[in-house]
Amino acid sequence: MNAYQKHLPVLERARQACAERHCWSPYPEMPGKYPDAEQAQAAGLRAFEAHRGTEGRPERFAFDQPGQIGWLGQEVSPYTQRSLNIVYPQADLDALFDSAEAAIDRWAQVSIEARLGTLMEVLDVIYREHLFEITHAVMHTAGQSYNMAYAGSGVNALDRGIEALVYAEHAMRAVAPQARWERSFGSAQITLDKTYRLVPRGVAVCFTCASFPTWNAWPSMLASLATGNAVIVKPHPATVLPMAISVRVFRRVLAEAGFDPNLVTLAVDSVSDPIGKRLVKHPKTAIVDFTGSVQFGQWVEENAHPALAYTETAGSNTVVLESADDLDAALRSLATTLCMFSAQMCTSPQNIYLPRQGVRTPQGLVSAREVGERLAQAVAALGSEPKKAAMILAAIQSPQTLALLQELRAQGAQAGRVLLEPAPYPHPQFPDARTSTPLMLQLSTAQRALYAGERFGPVSFVIECDSAQDALAQATGDVREFGGLTAFLYSTDESFIAQAEQAYARAGAQLTINLTGAMPLNFAAAYSDYHVTGLNRAGNASLTHLAFVSGRFCIAQSRRPARQPASI
Amino acid sequence: MNAYQKHLPVLERARQACAERHCWSPYPEMPGKYPDAEQAQAAGLRAFEAHRGTEGRPERFAFDQPGQIGWLGQEVSPYTQRSLNIVYPQADLDALFDSAEAAIDRWAQVSIEARLGTLMEVLDVIYREHLFEITHAVMHTAGQSYNMAYAGSGVNALDRGIEALVYAEHAMRAVAPQARWERSFGSAQITLDKTYRLVPRGVAVCFTCASFPTWNAWPSMLASLATGNAVIVKPHPATVLPMAISVRVFRRVLAEAGFDPNLVTLAVDSVSDPIGKRLVKHPKTAIVDFTGSVQFGQWVEENAHPALAYTETAGSNTVVLESADDLDAALRSLATTLCMFSAQMCTSPQNIYLPRQGVRTPQGLVSAREVGERLAQAVAALGSEPKKAAMILAAIQSPQTLALLQELRAQGAQAGRVLLEPAPYPHPQFPDARTSTPLMLQLSTAQRALYAGERFGPVSFVIECDSAQDALAQATGDVREFGGLTAFLYSTDESFIAQAEQAYARAGAQLTINLTGAMPLNFAAAYSDYHVTGLNRAGNASLTHLAFVSGRFCIAQSRRPARQPASI
Repeated sequence: MNAYQKHLPVLERARQACAERHCWSPYPEMPGKYPDAEQAQAAGLRAFEAHRGTEGRPERFAFDQPGQIGWLGQEVSPYTQRSLNIVYPQADLDALFDSAEAAIDRWAQVSIEARLGTLMEVLDVIYREHLFEITHAVMHTAGQSYNMAYAGSGVNALDRGIEALVYAEHAMRAVAPQARWERSFGSAQITLDKTYRLVPRGVAVCFTCASFPTWNAWPSMLASLATGNAVIVKPHPATVLPMAISVRVFRRVLAEAGFDPNLVTLAVDSVSDPIGKRLVKHPKTAIVDFTGSVQFGQWVEENAHPALAYTETAGSNTVVLESADDLDAALRSLATTLCMFSAQMCTSPQNIYLPRQGVRTPQGLVSAREVGERLAQAVAALGSEPKKAAMILAAIQSPQTLALLQELRAQGAQAGRVLLEPAPYPHPQFPDARTSTPLMLQLSTAQRALYAGERFGPVSFVIECDSAQDALAQATGDVREFGGLTAFLYSTDESFIAQAEQAYARAGAQLTINLTGAMPLNFAAAYSDYHVTGLNRAGNASLTHLAFVSGRFCIAQSRRPARQPASI
Repeated sequence: MNAYQKHLPVLERARQACAERHCWSPYPEMPGKYPDAEQAQAAGLRAFEAHRGTEGRPERFAFDQPGQIGWLGQEVSPYTQRSLNIVYPQADLDALFDSAEAAIDRWAQVSIEARLGTLMEVLDVIYREHLFEITHAVMHTAGQSYNMAYAGSGVNALDRGIEALVYAEHAMRAVAPQARWERSFGSAQITLDKTYRLVPRGVAVCFTCASFPTWNAWPSMLASLATGNAVIVKPHPATVLPMAISVRVFRRVLAEAGFDPNLVTLAVDSVSDPIGKRLVKHPKTAIVDFTGSVQFGQWVEENAHPALAYTETAGSNTVVLESADDLDAALRSLATTLCMFSAQMCTSPQNIYLPRQGVRTPQGLVSAREVGERLAQAVAALGSEPKKAAMILAAIQSPQTLALLQELRAQGAQAGRVLLEPAPYPHPQFPDARTSTPLMLQLSTAQRALYAGERFGPVSFVIECDSAQDALAQATGDVREFGGLTAFLYSTDESFIAQAEQAYARAGAQLTINLTGAMPLNFAAAYSDYHVTGLNRAGNASLTHLAFVSGRFCIAQSRRPARQPASI
């Protein structure tokens, strides 16, 4: 049984899920449900610890990849605010491109099954052998909680990877491998045998971000690799380890399957000497996948040509609060989502719009001021209990985020009203953790400069508008102007809901309506929720549909007179 | 029966052809096989003549499209070298964009069936009511022969249009319109109803070229329209009429189906005051389809962002002549293809590489010099008989092409050897036709500057190389450096053929091997032959596969708690 056959049952089930968009995953959602969980988690922690060096004696994360010219590493754990003391091979970029290019030919020429089987095996090895190691690596670089790192950066990211393989297979299978073509020209009968080859674009560069490294990276890498390309991974210098572990698994499984491991390599850099632009403009770059800042994402989109660019950056995620059957339930859900990983997710809401007159409820209008206060109370409650705060807020990835909070707090106090003051909370497990409860400001649309565009981190704005219509117009205007991935609406008015669905669809944000209860509002399910529409500045790519994969390969045909015209 | 149901049998048959890539068309290949051919052809000629004005009294090709600011027209028939005396509405661009944008909402929100049915009806109306009118319009703008204008710019272009609809439908149907999603979060069960909306990118601008207006334009327009976008057509100022007729049909059928005709409008310009860059950089441009010069095509690719760009330009199409079982048959086929529409096709071969030692045949080596001479004789034979020449060479679209021939002739005589002198041939039907037999030069690779890149028109170069290997390397090097759509190989050596298939696939040209006989070498069949690979400078788009359509729409979802969680 080859690798494709081994993994075919999962692939087939994933195909069905992608077509029907229902809920499915081959993986357990919670760490405790992982097979032999206790032992696996302990082994994962040990594997993570083994990567760490000590002060002055950094541990080398050895790679056998070509072109090594030094060692680099500057990761600091948000949970200890101390260096991880890990260094990675710094590579000569031309050597990476040359070796990647040399690896492509054979990889591109084997069957679709051979590539997909090998890549499914990669995901399986990550799941079976490295999941908790990556969980800890994500915690101590991105600052995610243990559970989020397991789910969002672990099994859900694996799911998005399988999803990318499903669509890559779909797009490739849509091309017949050969055909016999017969036609008469005048009295002559012409019979041609045609061969259609799938030709990869070339070398893909995959940029991964500091706060959520694997979730976009794995599907991007798999989409490129499945279609025959090679991938150079360029991790954010703050969050290298999860990608270094990933790259090593890809290389090992590729080599074991008889392929050139240089199909996947790692290009590390430092904040002071970034290599991003050199990678994008390298003459051998054929594809760029980018997750990260709006600013660099825009530069990538504008400068990637002739390479294709697939970007996911960020934007102003908005909430419109028009009316609610159960306002407390809505505010609790909003509060949880505002706190989730300290709003360091590209799907975290930021700008909360409501009518100045108040929000309609069965108990009557609740004033905008009161809504703001009750929402702030709900957020404060989550941050006040350290154990709960640790699970939900987790840690702050970058010190810059704390500086931004202080700056916005000062501006907000001048321009509007501080609903909630940010403050560190004591993490029960990591006393030195970089933490902050959220900052919340109440403003009117006159203070738009304060909230226009993404403010990365635990900050949100409760914004009073002229009316519900104005709230919707302001919110979707943000999305059109600054980009936006997600949006949230509470309304009991079906015609307002229908209007909002249209307005957000045009603006290009994925809309969640009237959701309350246990599910995080911004939870995006693989195989079911599309991530990023591609319609605004928050990114031009969507995880995952045909457009994410179908441009990564081309079709080159050859045709010749059939040698046995009579038979087929 | 609605329009979709009416046209479903053809669409279903076309789907099968696209999947299997065999030969099929719902249309008769030859004008004589058109239903009630004689009468239809006469009516088509009358319709064309009715568009023409007289000197000083140009006929107005009236349009009811918005924003008219004047009349423009400067078409000259290559067959009479006299003005067609037709003027078209010159439009205020902002008015076109505004009206296009206003038309999109409703068009995007109707069913896939409603859009596809309407667009199939457009193709059917073109076929039934305007085919011979467009045939004459193409002849007297592009300079094609009657038969080519009927087939290549008529029924084959309609076929490519249907093909684009098939892939657009495939990509859209891959998105489930809705789903029910159920999962537990802790002890809570969450049930969501999700809606997935297809959202068009917006306004597409479709540039059409002077020599082959409809073949790329119709599929591009249909790909954009099927996925919910609006289209502004920007024809080359030398070849407006075929697109003006097309646009008027689109508008009429759209209006008759109850849609806003401003989904399709025409933006004309003049050579002295071009509007191309303004269209590409217009803030409302979301998609650009471009067919035309390499130079402007490159500019489009580099500057279209944030719009998507789909380009087909041109390149150095190459021939490698290594060995042949029947050299005369090969040379006859090459000669016909070098003459076809005076090599004014993006698929015409230009650079013919062969080993200096000669070409292997069953009769022994034929020297490079002799091969060049015999090929020139075969070309000369085609040009020497006016009736045959008229059918094959047809007319020269632009006076600039004649100037280029003279320039290259002079340079070639200095640098190498003139195998064939270009000269006008007398057209039997149009004594004032702009015609020329081909220029052929024999050179060595030392004169590369002469043939490096596309030389548009009836000019070809027989180039002596060090060896067959060198010939293949030179040829595929041209493709990589200057782009190339097609390539042609004659070889009896299977291992050389296999090597050439790989080399051309990597370079990105579609390869035809050892083809002789009645079929023109560069004939590209809809539903079967992919046109342009997207792998080199000859264009980034391919007619037609999923990548040509899948980026033209995005997916915006909304989700909300299910109102009846128990049922589905």
